[in-house]
Amino acid sequence: MERNLKIVGIGGGTGLSTLLEGLKQRTDNLTAVVTVTDDGGSSGRLRKEFNIPPPGDIRNCIVSLSDSDSLISELFQYRFSGKSDLSGHSFGNLYITAMTAITGSFARGILETSRVLAIKGEVLPSTLENVVLGAKMADGKSILGQTKIVDYPGPIKEIFLVPKEPPAGQEVIKALVEADLIIMGPGSLFSSVIPNLLVNGITEAIKKSKAKKVYICNIMTQPGETDGFTVSDHYLAVEKYLGYRINNMIINNGKISEKLIKKHTIKNSFEVLDDSSKLAGRIKIIKADVVSNKEFARHDPAKITDVIFKYCLNIHMRLK
Amino acid sequence: MERNLKIVGIGGGTGLSTLLEGLKQRTDNLTAVVTVTDDGGSSGRLRKEFNIPPPGDIRNCIVSLSDSDSLISELFQYRFSGKSDLSGHSFGNLYITAMTAITGSFARGILETSRVLAIKGEVLPSTLENVVLGAKMADGKSILGQTKIVDYPGPIKEIFLVPKEPPAGQEVIKALVEADLIIMGPGSLFSSVIPNLLVNGITEAIKKSKAKKVYICNIMTQPGETDGFTVSDHYLAVEKYLGYRINNMIINNGKISEKLIKKHTIKNSFEVLDDSSKLAGRIKIIKADVVSNKEFARHDPAKITDVIFKYCLNIHMRLK
Repeated sequence: MERNLKIVGIGGGTGLSTLLEGLKQRTDNLTAVVTVTDDGGSSGRLRKEFNIPPPGDIRNCIVSLSDSDSLISELFQYRFSGKSDLSGHSFGNLYITAMTAITGSFARGILETSRVLAIKGEVLPSTLENVVLGAKMADGKSILGQTKIVDYPGPIKEIFLVPKEPPAGQEVIKALVEADLIIMGPGSLFSSVIPNLLVNGITEAIKKSKAKKVYICNIMTQPGETDGFTVSDHYLAVEKYLGYRINNMIINNGKISEKLIKKHTIKNSFEVLDDSSKLAGRIKIIKADVVSNKEFARHDPAKITDVIFKYCLNIHMRLK
Repeated sequence: MERNLKIVGIGGGTGLSTLLEGLKQRTDNLTAVVTVTDDGGSSGRLRKEFNIPPPGDIRNCIVSLSDSDSLISELFQYRFSGKSDLSGHSFGNLYITAMTAITGSFARGILETSRVLAIKGEVLPSTLENVVLGAKMADGKSILGQTKIVDYPGPIKEIFLVPKEPPAGQEVIKALVEADLIIMGPGSLFSSVIPNLLVNGITEAIKKSKAKKVYICNIMTQPGETDGFTVSDHYLAVEKYLGYRINNMIINNGKISEKLIKKHTIKNSFEVLDDSSKLAGRIKIIKADVVSNKEFARHDPAKITDVIFKYCLNIHMRLK
């Protein structure tokens, strides 16, 4: 029964794909709704040269949901290097680009790529339009383009899409409305999670859905994007763009190793301060040890999945 | 029983892959031994930038033997275009290149690519060394590099490999020795078929093999390579590099349409003159209508396969 639970994750490449790795162990009905505002690196080059939405975040999610052997996953994440025109391109991005060219649509290109990787669930771009992310920074400056926004120092005040309110895909709306659980985050607040909420129809569908809704707060601040942001700053930003309150928020209270704290500090990234008491009565706060102290202080796929099932779905049994 | 016949085709990308398309309808034991001297286009860029043998001819043969759906075949033959660094690259070439990088070997890269395309039979490079084709032209000039050789006007007198006598793969030797039938050609005489015979161990293996051996003569001359070559010129060039006589040669006697004759004439390509009476007693000459009058005057996969089975293997039944 548990494996039939319909779960939708909303986000971008890194945070969402980590989450999917955990969730796919517990359900066969996963949908990833993925932002398409990236304009840097391999994705940025491809969207410019082939006039398609950026494939990188979608690729990451497809690989996370893949049930195929590790060689094919490795191939999709392989990045060409050396002195070549191909240098910097991710092979999986080229796969999606070529599939899009052949089938004539980005949606079909993603679908066929998903088939080759034998994924559990589905990966959907929040919109099929080639949108650009815009931001008003805390200092009042307006910037267009995700890379430029993240590169600009200091926190973001407000974001928007150009063109404004692009339409959501029908399958996205369907998945949200029919979901048992909708998860927002973790991931870059303004460049991964919230851009999806700016797509026309998505906030309405989340509201309409009888699903439980949970926001997973980031563990660390992101330089140039959420500098100085506390737990309540994160949540209130999401609520602002949603236009209504949600049920649950998960906050990490696991200890981050000294070594990782130092590693993040060098990159101007700090532990998100827990001021969730400010939100008392507004939202159910779930505090748990969900941190992976591996390469970075990020969410651990198994830990976060267990917490979601236990506290948001009231399913206590661990399957492993 | 017929489907167990072990057939080895020796050649390059275009002629050999056409032949394979026909042969795969009649046997499950096909091996393509493919030249690796191409240095132009997408293959040329990849061999230079990634220090691998050229993947293009191998890709063509893999696609010909593929049993997977047409979408995947189409994807592998897709060529990036437009204003992009990727422009001109064949997607299948990039697939083989990435697979080679991940698995650490060109042979393994080809094997894994063959698996993804669910091919019937196997595709093997004649050597795994990164070899360069050299030629002495009829006018005495020596040239290094396949593209430069083909671009240089006038016929080729002699070809060689640098480094000299690179070793053949063990699987190539095994396939040749165990074969029931070995087919050389059709395809570019000096830049596809014969380069394989310069690989150390191959002519000995063909000689040692109890297989019937057949050379399929080209229908048209190739500008810059076999200008003015007759049927006997073609065969004697093959015999020269083999070092011994073979059993059979197939020559087209089907009519080529006036339209195609004109189309070829513009490109300085002419019908190969049949002077096979010169070879009487030296080799069994099989004359048959094997031409496809479609886009170019090339071999028709079904026609040439039927002729091979009927006259070289004495199997008259048409399966279709």
